[in-house]
Parts: sequence; structure tokens; C-alpha cells
Amino acid sequence: MKIEKITVTPIAIQDPPLLNVLGIHQPYALRSIIEVTADNGLVGLAETYGDSNTLNGLNRVSELLAGLDPFCLNDLEARVERGLAGMKVKDGSILAPGTIPERAKAIAFAAYETACLDLQGKLLGLPVAEVLGGRVRDAVPFSAYLFYKKARHIGAAHDDPYGAAETPEAVVRQAKAFVAEYGFKSLKLKGGVYEPAVEIETMRQLKKAFPDHPLRLDPNGGWTVKTAIAAAHELEGVLEYLEDPVLGFAESADVAHSISMPIATNMVVVSFQDLAESVRHGSVQVILSDHHYWGGMRATQALAKICSIWKLGLSMHSNSHLGISLVAMAHVAAACTNLTYACDTHYPWQQDEVIAGGKLKFIDGALPVPTKPGLGVDLDRDALTRLHRQYLACEDLDRDDVKEMRKYDPNWKGALPRF
Amino acid sequence: MKIEKITVTPIAIQDPPLLNVLGIHQPYALRSIIEVTADNGLVGLAETYGDSNTLNGLNRVSELLAGLDPFCLNDLEARVERGLAGMKVKDGSILAPGTIPERAKAIAFAAYETACLDLQGKLLGLPVAEVLGGRVRDAVPFSAYLFYKKARHIGAAHDDPYGAAETPEAVVRQAKAFVAEYGFKSLKLKGGVYEPAVEIETMRQLKKAFPDHPLRLDPNGGWTVKTAIAAAHELEGVLEYLEDPVLGFAESADVAHSISMPIATNMVVVSFQDLAESVRHGSVQVILSDHHYWGGMRATQALAKICSIWKLGLSMHSNSHLGISLVAMAHVAAACTNLTYACDTHYPWQQDEVIAGGKLKFIDGALPVPTKPGLGVDLDRDALTRLHRQYLACEDLDRDDVKEMRKYDPNWKGALPRF
Repeated sequence: MKIEKITVTPIAIQDPPLLNVLGIHQPYALRSIIEVTADNGLVGLAETYGDSNTLNGLNRVSELLAGLDPFCLNDLEARVERGLAGMKVKDGSILAPGTIPERAKAIAFAAYETACLDLQGKLLGLPVAEVLGGRVRDAVPFSAYLFYKKARHIGAAHDDPYGAAETPEAVVRQAKAFVAEYGFKSLKLKGGVYEPAVEIETMRQLKKAFPDHPLRLDPNGGWTVKTAIAAAHELEGVLEYLEDPVLGFAESADVAHSISMPIATNMVVVSFQDLAESVRHGSVQVILSDHHYWGGMRATQALAKICSIWKLGLSMHSNSHLGISLVAMAHVAAACTNLTYACDTHYPWQQDEVIAGGKLKFIDGALPVPTKPGLGVDLDRDALTRLHRQYLACEDLDRDDVKEMRKYDPNWKGALPRF
Repeated sequence: MKIEKITVTPIAIQDPPLLNVLGIHQPYALRSIIEVTADNGLVGLAETYGDSNTLNGLNRVSELLAGLDPFCLNDLEARVERGLAGMKVKDGSILAPGTIPERAKAIAFAAYETACLDLQGKLLGLPVAEVLGGRVRDAVPFSAYLFYKKARHIGAAHDDPYGAAETPEAVVRQAKAFVAEYGFKSLKLKGGVYEPAVEIETMRQLKKAFPDHPLRLDPNGGWTVKTAIAAAHELEGVLEYLEDPVLGFAESADVAHSISMPIATNMVVVSFQDLAESVRHGSVQVILSDHHYWGGMRATQALAKICSIWKLGLSMHSNSHLGISLVAMAHVAAACTNLTYACDTHYPWQQDEVIAGGKLKFIDGALPVPTKPGLGVDLDRDALTRLHRQYLACEDLDRDDVKEMRKYDPNWKGALPRF
């Protein structure tokens, strides 16, 4: 089996006005859909970021992939290295992984590796989880990803279906709706938006409403060490983990050494290069994996192994995404023995879908790991065309939550730490 | 593809009277040959230790493998866990990995994983290196593994073909013969046998005879910290690395911090559980991988990743072995980007062979990585029968270099450190 043809299609998907430490989500999130066609007619799929840096990287590499055997992932890595050599990466948001130069190779590799694993599975008649060594669970639990949010995007004619969530009470209502609809058994709140006292109160109200659901709060690096320690003390017994209260290896370690709950991260430790220093400092206790920027599914398995050795917990990060990413996340999570935390996902916030059959269904808060060969999903070509047109109509081709927030507040800084 | 049948055949292979820190090799080394037959008629091969603990583990697990898909290696791991639960492991030599209780699961898993990867490759029509992500080198360099040795086993009628090597000059002659016959470009001496001054002199004479060959000395944990530091200073500029001069995380770190050459290990760090502590101490700078006891080929790739992150060198360990182990070592070494040191192998010391076509050939000190599907070797059934008979005739079914040495010296202790 040899690769013959690559198609990278940027798409834009509707995204609600979700608030975070840097500002607010824009009306569209950008993704790209990768199709890798082999000489036997099989097509491997993948989904990743759709910002201009990621697209640039994917396109540079795509020219070098003809003739590659989808099993030869070391050769893929070498071709990614060659394709990205000398590529300039535009600076961008710390919330948009595609815009961080150090991640460019890992992102491009991960996208093509996912498509190659889809091809491997299709050739073998095995799901990707089995290609990766076999599922250790048949369904992967996800958490409800709660957000403070506006009722509608600025300039929009109507409220979106989710409604506003600008108070603790409204977040509890959001949580109840998510739990009722999807059955989620863990709840995560995106914090760093309001004064810590408000977010602490939100977590307490969530705890009261869901006493048996593990809870997480993610201030996205928006707090000072002092704020983080004080907040953690107030949230004793409320949180399963506190995610990225502060930025920096030393700063995170300072917090970790002063509080009793674990610190999770997808901002302090974001690559294999970060592990040695963070372990030395004792910066974090839980790593949020993400095959999209950690260098793929097999790299995620290596990360899982490292977490087991250094006694770190392992959870999973998410950005706004569609079903191809979701099943890829589920396959790799199913094939990692120690991925025992419920994974994050923005999926319930997306109405658009690019896979045939429409949105995937969670059962009791978990996604059944597909049992068909490969990733187990097919493209809806009409949807792809529509979402690509949506992309072509977008003004902003890079994520910028700060810029969007300035539409609401012209003096908005978007600087960290906020509190 | 499902596993139908397992055959584990213990064999004994002739082994010369090689000296080491604990004593001397017995006339036969014990191995086991694993055949895993799938329901499609394909047979996966593997070779591992043949001591009674390893055989016990392999046999306990073999009963649980029927119906396993050879791609489902996580399920294999679970079955190995079940099969070995409660198994008592006899104490034995630190030089016989099968006799160390902590390694039992890793050894049994590795053997069956190798056979499963052979099956995967045969099903796919791909060599195992490609199943593992693809070769990054077409031939794997090995080092000449030099030993002090007796001319013949005690009680034997004739000298063996290798002759005695009980002086520095004789080791240089041995090195010249190995380099002439196999083209090795690196030389390793098994030390810990004579007073350090003799071994230092041997290394100096090797350096004079082979000024461009990287040299290694392996006292097998036989030295005190003081002896090791003094010897390392004398060997400045002579060695590429010093292997296991002492035992213990703290002791090895004490040496490492006092000398300039790297310390390599297959005795201080022998499992993933050892990595965190050794990294914290800075105990070693080069890890000698060995898929036979590190938990298989994919685990070796994970180890390689860890070495790249923590900036550790990666080399490869060997015990007395035949061609199935040799090609397995070559496949995994070919699929690890950072396995850049020449690998160890005892292979030139073995006259017996169990694969069809007889002994594999090194070219310029390197083994060409097989390009046929799977491991790329087939069993010579007549040889297997003969070597199994040889096993059945053996008195000792566990390696014991100390006991063997007492035949030469009844007062031999075999205790560490020696010098």
C-alpha cells in the first residue's frame, strides 16, 4: 500500500460565544479535513486545526508523501521534517496550538499519522484502537465541558440554542442540560473568566447539584500563584483536579507544593521536550494528552507510558472539533491502559458535522469506540463542501479570541495572569 | 487472525567458557523457541531465555492465548498478567534475566509480542521493522563482544575454536580475529574478571591496535565506587562508555558525577520502574535496551522515546542467543531513530543455529535488516529437534556461572563487588 494523493480541505464550523481567559470564541472555529488516498483505493481520514500555520504545514508536507507506505511512520516523520524545514510560523494565540512554532511538526505528523492509521486499519479490517494494540475499554468516558458564555455572538440576530451562562446559577443549568442530554459523569468548567470568587462559587453550586460527579476547573493559566493557592484551598474537597491555574514550570510547582489537589495541564507541559523539566520541578500531576499536538496517537501512547512511570495522571485535552477528531480521540484513549480520567471534548458545542450519519452519540457520557475498520467513520461530501464554503466566507483565518472580545470591550487586553 | 496453538521448545546451545564477574559460562546456554500458530496457518516465531522460571512463565501464559488476535497486544498483556499471577520465581543469577522476579511479566510478554509481530508482518507482507513504524537504517551495526576466556571447558577433551584469552595480548588477538571475520567497528570487553590494572592495560592495548574503533568496558557491577572512579580516570580518552562499573542508583551516580565518560547500564536500570529514580540521581547516561526483558519491541521504542526526552544514550544488551533473537534485535534497532550505538551481541560465540540456512552473516560489522515479511527467518526443524535433545541432556536447567567456576576454584565466591 502506497500513498498516491493527499487532499487537505480547510473548513469552518459554527462555534458559540464561549468565554475564556483570553476573550471569547469567534463565530467560526477552523479545522482541516485530510484525505489520504492509497494506490489500492483506500482513503485514510484525519481532522486537525485549520489555522493558516497548520494549513501551511500540511500543504508543504503533502507534496512529499506520494509513494510513502502508510505503515512507515518513521519515514513519514522524516518527510514532515523535510517539508517543514525553514517554515516560518506566524505568532498567534496560546489557545490555538497551530500557532506555536514548536508544535508545527508534531501537528503535521499527527494529522498524517491519523490518516495512515485509518488506512492501516482499513487494510487490516481492524479498528484503529486494535492497530494501536487493542482497546482496553469499549467506550471512552468524556466530561461535560462547561463554559461561561454570552447568549449570542455580537451582531447576531438571535440567541443561540445554548443560551447565556454568565452566573453560577446559569452554569448549573447548563450542566444539568448537558448531563440530561449526554449522560456525562464528570464536569469541567472553563474558568479564568470572572473573579475567582465567582468561579469558586460556581464550582460549589455544581458540587451541590452534582455531589457524585468529579469536578474540574480550568483557569487557563489566568491566575497568579497567590490567587491559585488561595482558590485551591477554598476548593478543597470540591475538585478532582485544578487545571493550569498558572503558567510556568516553577510557578506551577509552587502552587502544586502548597495545595493538596492535583494540578492538570495542557499549557505548562505541551510536548515531550517539556516533560524532563516539569518532572524535575514537580510542576504538574496530571497531563492532558492530545494526539493533535503531541505528535499523534502512537506518541500519545508513549506519553501514557511515561505518565505511568513517573506516576502522573493522564487525561485528554480538546479544542473545538468534529467527529473525525472525536473518534480518533476515542480510539487512542481506548488503547491507553492508564487513560482513566474522562476526556475533555467541545463536541456538544458544535452543531456542524462532516461525517456521514451526522453527530455521534454519547451513551451515559461515553463514546462507544467504533468497531468498523480504521477510524470507523466516513466523510459526508456535501457537508464537507458546505463547511469549506463556510471557511471561504470567513474573514479571520486564524483564531483570535482577544480580537473577538474587543468587539464587546474595546479596552480588552487579553493579558495573563488576569487575577 | 486468531491464535490457535502455542509451542514452546526449550533448547540448549553450545557456549564457550567465557569469563565474567560471577564466574564462567557453562558448556550450554539455555534458550526457548516459541511458535505461535494462527487460524490462517501463519506461524509467528520468537526466541527468549530458556531457564526454568522463563519456561514456567511461558507455559502458564500459553494456555491463555487461544483466540487472541495477534494485533491486540494490550489483551496479550492482560493475559500475561493473569497467567503469571501468583507464580513463584526461583532466585537466581543477576546475569540471568529470567531469574529476576520483577522481570517475569516483561519477559513472557516480550516473547509472545515478538511472535505476534512476526504474525502481523507475515499477514501484512511487511517486515517487522515496518510493522514497528519503518526502518530508519537498512543494517544495524553490532560491536565485537570480547571476553577473557579459558581455552576449553573443564573436562573437555579439546580446546574450542576460539582459544584461550587470559592476557591483554590474547584479547587483542581475539579482537583482530573478530574484526577480520565480521568487520565490527566497535569493540566491547566483558570486564570484572581480573584486577582493574589488567583490564585497563587490555583496553589500552585494544586502543593501540584499533585507534578508530569506539571501545567499551563492562565490569558488570564488579567494582567499588572508588575503583570505578580511579579506573575511569585512567581510561580517559580510551572508552566511548564505561558499562555498569558499580551497582546501585546512588553508587552509579557517585561515579558518574566524578568522571567525564558516560556510564552505560543493563544492571542499574533494567525496567521502566527504574527510570524515574535513576533520572533523579543522574545514575547513568546510556541505557542498554533489550526487548527480551524490557517488555518487547514496542516497549523498546517507548524506552527510545524516553531516552531522547531525558537526553540519555541508547544502546542494546545481549545474552547468548541464536538467529531469531538476532533478527528481532535488528528489526527493533532499525525502527528506533536514536539507537545510534552499535548493539551488543554474543552471536559470534554460538556455533549452533536454529534457523533455516544457518548462521546469519554480518557485513562490515552490521546485520542487514531482513526484508522478508515478519522477522524474515524460518525454523530449521531438524536443528530444533537436535538442540532440544541437547537441552534434555543438560544437567543444569538454570544458568549458574558461579557454580561452574567452582569447578575450577572450589573457594570461588562470586560475590560483588570484586575489586
